[in-house]
Amino acid sequence: MNLKDIGEFGLIARLAENCIFNKKEILVGIGDDTAVLPLDQDYHLLVSCDMLIEKMHFLREVSSPFQIGYKSVAVNFSDIAAMGGWPTSILVSIGIPKSISFEYIDEIYKGMKNICKKYSVNIIGGDTVASPDGIVINVTVLGKVEKNNLHLRSHAKVDDVVFTTGTLGNSAAGLQIIKNIQNHLDIDIPSKIKDFLLQKHLSPEPCLNEIRILNKIELGLNALNDISDGLASEAWEIANASQIGIELYKDRIPISEETQILGQLLKTSPLDWALYGGEDFQLIGTIDKIHFPIFSKEYKRENGTDLFEIGRTINYPGVFLVHNEEKVYLNKSGFNHFD
Amino acid sequence: MNLKDIGEFGLIARLAENCIFNKKEILVGIGDDTAVLPLDQDYHLLVSCDMLIEKMHFLREVSSPFQIGYKSVAVNFSDIAAMGGWPTSILVSIGIPKSISFEYIDEIYKGMKNICKKYSVNIIGGDTVASPDGIVINVTVLGKVEKNNLHLRSHAKVDDVVFTTGTLGNSAAGLQIIKNIQNHLDIDIPSKIKDFLLQKHLSPEPCLNEIRILNKIELGLNALNDISDGLASEAWEIANASQIGIELYKDRIPISEETQILGQLLKTSPLDWALYGGEDFQLIGTIDKIHFPIFSKEYKRENGTDLFEIGRTINYPGVFLVHNEEKVYLNKSGFNHFD
Repeated sequence: MNLKDIGEFGLIARLAENCIFNKKEILVGIGDDTAVLPLDQDYHLLVSCDMLIEKMHFLREVSSPFQIGYKSVAVNFSDIAAMGGWPTSILVSIGIPKSISFEYIDEIYKGMKNICKKYSVNIIGGDTVASPDGIVINVTVLGKVEKNNLHLRSHAKVDDVVFTTGTLGNSAAGLQIIKNIQNHLDIDIPSKIKDFLLQKHLSPEPCLNEIRILNKIELGLNALNDISDGLASEAWEIANASQIGIELYKDRIPISEETQILGQLLKTSPLDWALYGGEDFQLIGTIDKIHFPIFSKEYKRENGTDLFEIGRTINYPGVFLVHNEEKVYLNKSGFNHFD
Repeated sequence: MNLKDIGEFGLIARLAENCIFNKKEILVGIGDDTAVLPLDQDYHLLVSCDMLIEKMHFLREVSSPFQIGYKSVAVNFSDIAAMGGWPTSILVSIGIPKSISFEYIDEIYKGMKNICKKYSVNIIGGDTVASPDGIVINVTVLGKVEKNNLHLRSHAKVDDVVFTTGTLGNSAAGLQIIKNIQNHLDIDIPSKIKDFLLQKHLSPEPCLNEIRILNKIELGLNALNDISDGLASEAWEIANASQIGIELYKDRIPISEETQILGQLLKTSPLDWALYGGEDFQLIGTIDKIHFPIFSKEYKRENGTDLFEIGRTINYPGVFLVHNEEKVYLNKSGFNHFD
């Protein structure tokens, strides 16, 4: 069978069969942003990993080595944030073609060390090997979460408020700028907008401070996920895992001014970037409806930014985009690695 | 600077600088077979990872996908054994070219699940991505060790007995058979010998049962390492980390009959395979001299095989091969990924 036919999610579902041979060493296995393992009386251990391959996940002519290093760690930290936790350690495996200079690799590690220092995370090990083709980076992250702050995709309840922590579609808009440059499409984009969107795509920031604030409020935070594959895909993951449905309010999905302007310039709907673009690394979650007003007020006071109410959970399956009286069924298809 | 000039060990030394930003979350960082992290009252947490890249670490025309999966996990289990521990969980990242069938990937995972089941280890997560060229596999392993059973490379004392758990050079001999087949060198090798050595190279077994027996004896086991890069290289790692020297007895390095016969057939010294071949995944360690006789007797009784005395630690730096009155300085150069 062809991998394209079975798809990334089909492959994962198949590979995830018959993986547990020692139940007492595992709390949550394959199927959430990280695995959850027993640690001690107060904490769970979180572990996850991401592989980035040159030409598939980054381009040397677009990203600086510092940015490649920074982002490869940031995406892993985002998975830890999506569980309610914070990272403690990373391991870095790197496959290096012979043509690459020592200085280039050193610069990748500077990016990694920069974000690790920012969040007080240790680099504790890894592997360095030769690669016959492009650069390959695998980052494994370990983290911790207080037992009562663990938030799974499956924790949503019916009639929750669905929220996100920030504007969506910026990363996809940044990617679009890169594609335009590569295709020599000469569209005049104001440099302030260009810089903002490229930064969002090339050096995303994990929501580690945001999750600490959310946890501190302690008022009915239920499901949680990070937006790595696009809002539609992440909403589907919560809906499926929690066996509920989700309505997203078309008019309330937050889109930055920069992304809106780029959408106008390129005659593209920025909403598509938000729904299917991915790599925004904001958090999406659900909160008890009754607690949301005070929760969002507290969040704004602590973080200085809005907690955006973008939808609600419903008691039947599916993810829908609603606008006035209209209600459209949303496909899951965010980014699929084998398309 | 060229990576070849700085070399794998030089690169690792450089990348390992300034990696610790939170001392309370780490016990042992980069520089041993695994990192050691605080876990609970009785145990330490062990974490390590290895990256295998097609054409560099395995060839699809030589290894079956089952063997590729099995070995990629075995080498990680070996790192855990080398610390005195046992594995509990793995995460698997895999980069897959579009040309590969679903069945092939499934077979790789069957190999992984087979060895995980054998040692009661869970597969708890990972990443599946598309690769533009060959297959890339990164396995991260987590394990545990009782605090008093943690054995670092730096734990050797002067006047210890240096031991190994099994015959060395088999994997390099197996690799030699593969190279001969690839080069169409038609040397008649008895099929029993061929099968034995190919098995050792393609499906190595980690010393997880052996380390449990060694720990159980509890009599002066000091430094420990697994033989992934060749005996000379591993002896150097212990010597450097412990700030001692090592003499290896040329006549007592255990070499299997199969490897000896192949050496005769190919007119190659099997001792070179043992010293510089690597991938044997036996353990090398040091034990208080006074305890070694009873230790080795107990080991033989429990495991049914010998614990081979192959040398001794000395109070000045260097690794030497001794034979009668002769004493030769041994270079470290086992396998270096950037040669």
